[in-house]
Amino acid sequence: MEPFEIQILGCGSALPTTRHNASSQVVRIGNRWLMIDCGEGTQQQLRKQHISFSQISSVFISHLHGDHCFGLIGMISSFALLGRSAPLHIFADKLLRQIMKPQLDFFCKGISYELIFHDIDATIHSIIYEDNVITVETIPQEHRLPCCGFIIREKPKKRHIIGEMMEYYKVPEYLRKGLKEGNDFITPDGITIPNNRLTREADPSRSYAYCSDTLPCPQNIKYLKGVDLLYHEATFAESEKVRAKETYHTTARQAAELAQEANVKQLVIGHFSSRYTNDDMLLKEAREIFQTAEKADENRIFKI
Amino acid sequence: MEPFEIQILGCGSALPTTRHNASSQVVRIGNRWLMIDCGEGTQQQLRKQHISFSQISSVFISHLHGDHCFGLIGMISSFALLGRSAPLHIFADKLLRQIMKPQLDFFCKGISYELIFHDIDATIHSIIYEDNVITVETIPQEHRLPCCGFIIREKPKKRHIIGEMMEYYKVPEYLRKGLKEGNDFITPDGITIPNNRLTREADPSRSYAYCSDTLPCPQNIKYLKGVDLLYHEATFAESEKVRAKETYHTTARQAAELAQEANVKQLVIGHFSSRYTNDDMLLKEAREIFQTAEKADENRIFKI
Repeated sequence: MEPFEIQILGCGSALPTTRHNASSQVVRIGNRWLMIDCGEGTQQQLRKQHISFSQISSVFISHLHGDHCFGLIGMISSFALLGRSAPLHIFADKLLRQIMKPQLDFFCKGISYELIFHDIDATIHSIIYEDNVITVETIPQEHRLPCCGFIIREKPKKRHIIGEMMEYYKVPEYLRKGLKEGNDFITPDGITIPNNRLTREADPSRSYAYCSDTLPCPQNIKYLKGVDLLYHEATFAESEKVRAKETYHTTARQAAELAQEANVKQLVIGHFSSRYTNDDMLLKEAREIFQTAEKADENRIFKI
Repeated sequence: MEPFEIQILGCGSALPTTRHNASSQVVRIGNRWLMIDCGEGTQQQLRKQHISFSQISSVFISHLHGDHCFGLIGMISSFALLGRSAPLHIFADKLLRQIMKPQLDFFCKGISYELIFHDIDATIHSIIYEDNVITVETIPQEHRLPCCGFIIREKPKKRHIIGEMMEYYKVPEYLRKGLKEGNDFITPDGITIPNNRLTREADPSRSYAYCSDTLPCPQNIKYLKGVDLLYHEATFAESEKVRAKETYHTTARQAAELAQEANVKQLVIGHFSSRYTNDDMLLKEAREIFQTAEKADENRIFKI
């Protein structure tokens, strides 16, 4: 199977710490490299993690808090300095392009590539990106301003041709595409060979969900149901539950409860408050509910 | 003497590298902490170097290239999140406040402290800041857009009272301030005691100059003459002399020549191009002219 990996560039929250960078991650699906959120210092993190700048095709911004988007202008500028030619797609609240306009006009005048903004309506669940392999959908979050999560799903894949059967039944080349899609084969003698003798099961379609920053949103469980990997913010420990609610954030335990209810296959917690000098306590609280939970950290790669 | 120190937060140039951060440094004179330039990631560097956010009173921006100012918005936001109350002064080209306005209106609405922009005219040499201890002056640089260097000078200091002499001549307390300024003392019997018997020489007034980014500017030598420490950009090696000129930058050798001609006491080179994986070669070229030259590096502190 092609790689489907999430690489953490930053998993801290609003205030900088010596341990964590502001929110950003890259999701690699085959040769697609998507970025989710782009806090300050993201371009430096790309360098440190040896991710080629030119691979990033799209950036998805969950919401307009600085720790999720202040790295955009620097990254956009550097892409231009490096002579990028491929367009860069930015999916974000429509206010972002207004806010960034004077910056872009001044710092990025006449850049070498096209910057294409796509407006997100964070209040609704909808597919905002689609190509022949994946879809990206938004799910509304509950934060102090419009905020959405993202779910990236592989589309249903094609069945695998069984080479020996092609030879045995002398299936012409031009029919094989149809077999991958489930067609049966009818021999020149008029005998129907059922598809499942000619092909093997398609690979499963994998999925990844990103939820940050938000109150726990049980209403989104229907969308999260069974995803392979859920990255969920866990800004606070259970002892800060009141503060979490006041600031529209989630505790590690709440993130784990949501993951359990949604029956996701794996949970990664992130977006840790700067008040914690060690995130193990947050992980411990999550694991009390979701035993295999993992915690994000800069440089970590989670494979699906 | 009170500390007069330059602490390097970042000494890279436009593109991020794994070794250097974008331009920023703090200059500490006694209990004053001034920042010069504020590239992306500066607030994180402050954290890593354990510099208290609340100490920074003023930020001086040499010019409006992203690697010298993209860190402002994040730092301003974090200061607000931390409930700062003291005003923050930003000295920069007047365009900066226009460019930042939509960002500040959106991300920093109702912040807890006053943000005061002071417009710089980078084309002239002038004093832009003055208090009872220091002055900060601009010197015009030659770059691809308006750019200035900064010279921070301690004002002339007061002479030191010699305690035993105060007792010996029974100098009343209220006259001592005048002695520090050079007055003689006239005894009740009408005898004049010359100041130099009562006081010792004042400490020397120290000075620091920051020049980045620029072509070598021999016309500024008159301002740089004899400064204690000159930080000068040395983006390129001598082999890239043509490129340096084209991009309005300086080579390490040129920086050293300028330092030598200006007879500065110490030279620190910085703003290294991302093309170099090791800056020792730049330092070597500078030292061929200015033997005691040093190179900037994140975390290094240069004491005057």
